[in-house]
Amino acid sequence: MSPDPSQHPNAALPFFRSRWVPAPGHVRELGLQAGLPSGFRAAGVAAGIKPSGNPDVGLLVCDAPEPVSAARFTSSGTPAAPVLVTRERCRLDALRVILANSGCANAATGRRGLDDAAKTQGAAAVAARADPAAVALASTGGISHLLPVEAVLKGILRARSQLAREGDGAFQQAIQTTDLFEKRANLEVALPSGSVRLSAQCKGAGMISPRFATMLCFIETDAELSAETAELLLGVCVKRSFDRASVDGQLSTNDTAIMIASGASGVRIAPESEDELRFGEALDALLRALAIMMVADGEGARRIARVVVNGGHSDGVEAAARAVANSPLVKAALHGGDPNWGRIVQAVGAALPGTAPLAVDIAIEGMQVCSGGAAIPYELSALEQAVQREEVEYEVTLPGEGAETEVFFSDLSHEYVTINADYTT
Amino acid sequence: MSPDPSQHPNAALPFFRSRWVPAPGHVRELGLQAGLPSGFRAAGVAAGIKPSGNPDVGLLVCDAPEPVSAARFTSSGTPAAPVLVTRERCRLDALRVILANSGCANAATGRRGLDDAAKTQGAAAVAARADPAAVALASTGGISHLLPVEAVLKGILRARSQLAREGDGAFQQAIQTTDLFEKRANLEVALPSGSVRLSAQCKGAGMISPRFATMLCFIETDAELSAETAELLLGVCVKRSFDRASVDGQLSTNDTAIMIASGASGVRIAPESEDELRFGEALDALLRALAIMMVADGEGARRIARVVVNGGHSDGVEAAARAVANSPLVKAALHGGDPNWGRIVQAVGAALPGTAPLAVDIAIEGMQVCSGGAAIPYELSALEQAVQREEVEYEVTLPGEGAETEVFFSDLSHEYVTINADYTT
Repeated sequence: MSPDPSQHPNAALPFFRSRWVPAPGHVRELGLQAGLPSGFRAAGVAAGIKPSGNPDVGLLVCDAPEPVSAARFTSSGTPAAPVLVTRERCRLDALRVILANSGCANAATGRRGLDDAAKTQGAAAVAARADPAAVALASTGGISHLLPVEAVLKGILRARSQLAREGDGAFQQAIQTTDLFEKRANLEVALPSGSVRLSAQCKGAGMISPRFATMLCFIETDAELSAETAELLLGVCVKRSFDRASVDGQLSTNDTAIMIASGASGVRIAPESEDELRFGEALDALLRALAIMMVADGEGARRIARVVVNGGHSDGVEAAARAVANSPLVKAALHGGDPNWGRIVQAVGAALPGTAPLAVDIAIEGMQVCSGGAAIPYELSALEQAVQREEVEYEVTLPGEGAETEVFFSDLSHEYVTINADYTT
Repeated sequence: MSPDPSQHPNAALPFFRSRWVPAPGHVRELGLQAGLPSGFRAAGVAAGIKPSGNPDVGLLVCDAPEPVSAARFTSSGTPAAPVLVTRERCRLDALRVILANSGCANAATGRRGLDDAAKTQGAAAVAARADPAAVALASTGGISHLLPVEAVLKGILRARSQLAREGDGAFQQAIQTTDLFEKRANLEVALPSGSVRLSAQCKGAGMISPRFATMLCFIETDAELSAETAELLLGVCVKRSFDRASVDGQLSTNDTAIMIASGASGVRIAPESEDELRFGEALDALLRALAIMMVADGEGARRIARVVVNGGHSDGVEAAARAVANSPLVKAALHGGDPNWGRIVQAVGAALPGTAPLAVDIAIEGMQVCSGGAAIPYELSALEQAVQREEVEYEVTLPGEGAETEVFFSDLSHEYVTINADYTT
């Protein structure tokens, strides 16, 4: 019996709850009951894919005459069938329908998996009266199992009959797997040319790594965007959000992020306009907050961290940041509330062979503990208190300047092992 | 109170206990009481570095007139002071003394750490009547703490008075940290030109990754080797052993492997001779067996695995093998005895972006489960039984042929989290 994510204490917190992503001044949270932007309907139903009987088929439809979209997918060499079908057969700039399921990833399923995906795409196209090339597919769940096509088809029909602007909560539930709390938002964005809506539903708890993209995320807006603007904004914002989040350094076969713009608000976002800037800021904050939520809901996570790495080479800061974020030793220390920064030295050193002796500076929650590669005096009790917080910040400075990156990551807990060792997922 | 590694049930098992490294026909196990090869004496004492009062300073001396040696060190960009001092100030082909300590890594200790290391090097040189450039230093323990030099100096004097050919057990104990069982061997190697002895003492339980080198290992032989031969054999054998072992994908700041040859047997190993071939086989088996023991004694390990990857590109097989070996999802499944090979697909796909759709074959314990990237029928109950064994073998085949590699790795357990989250190490 899975917990109901909408009942989790976090569901009652403000959406912009992390100190790392303050809400922009022109963005207002509308609450989880506000419904989707104009031009969108969604539904989620239990179609019997999950043995638990929880919702597992979600359908989202844009009713606008000419929706505009953009999409990003996993960089895995073994992408799932829905990723291959969507990426290769769809008009990614004109998606109108999203058919998503949980309980089965339809990955490592070969030719049969592609055929199964195509069948559900066809069915969703008929159900939503759309061109199949406008139907994006997304699946999440266990790898290597064949998709139960009959169940999905029944789910499509049931979901079609329940499509509603308030269906985003049900849609969200249908895409969740081991998520403990809902990761979605309904925002109002004040632009110089008028007000627009921005919503997103997102899942992801394990198999999450700092490369694009690392989960399922669907974003809807009633703003009017050109395909080029949608592509540009989604690309930039994904790089600054999901691309910087790691639960366990594991890249999924199924990661997908799709944004659809209905244009129903009549507010047009012109390229290089103040509207574009403000809309981009809102989308950036939305996706960064969702990325941090994913990390906070990482399998077994009790505590999350941000590592910021500065230095002279972009490759070096990237390698160091990922090494820290994915180090099981650093993650276990984070879990234990242990200020063991020697493990950060270890991770950075391992990531940068050939640089010895490396003059690395390290600060934790603003307290410097290591300068030029060597320990310096600090107040241990203050440091111990700082690493007990829900969010912990590490800052690593490498020689040189000009490059900077960050990665958000979760701790390594007993619960992660329990979730991933004791049950087949 | 730490357990006594010499009392662990594994201490009573044969040294060549893994099916992956059978004992060569010309190699005989002499048992743990056989003592060091002729020309060597060792000792280990409790000098008060470890709060537990366990042994923490080890001294090993070669009494031969002209010992020959070779050494390998961590590739970390943040190597510890003993690594820097040994690598930069010693004659690595003529080492005579090894001063090793546990309880403190003397890493991230800056200029002061280098000075401290040099002091202990000088003291050991005087105590052993050797040139300081012939004294190798090796430390293991917590990073960022200053070396308690006074304690080490006292330990050197006490250890000197206890030096004995039978001191290898005490020496071994003095270099251990979280190890649960002893990793050492005394072997007799029959060569065409005569019989020689080969011994090794090794530690390592966490912070172990498949790059050279990943722990402390000291090897002694009474064979007569040229410096070139020692360098060649150690280099090749380390690449095939410690370089292929991963507990947690974490590269230590202190990894060191040193081989010293006393020549006391009078048996000379000529370059490109049958003697060299046979001696190399013995050294190879010794180091591979030790590497597998380190993995089996990985922090919290219950079960170990070997992943063999075949394919057309050496970079590709290496990336895929490491991705599988270091995947927390694969490791958690290994721990749970869960035949969840979808996680292997995921890890391989993540390691090889730009190859989609990748035609990967996967077999577990000889049972093929995935062909051309897609699941094939197999007997689940037989597979479930196979992954319950103490050693599990995964075989991954990528397109093309000509390249092959392997990595030995341990599982991810609750105990790993307990060891690394609940205590500062």
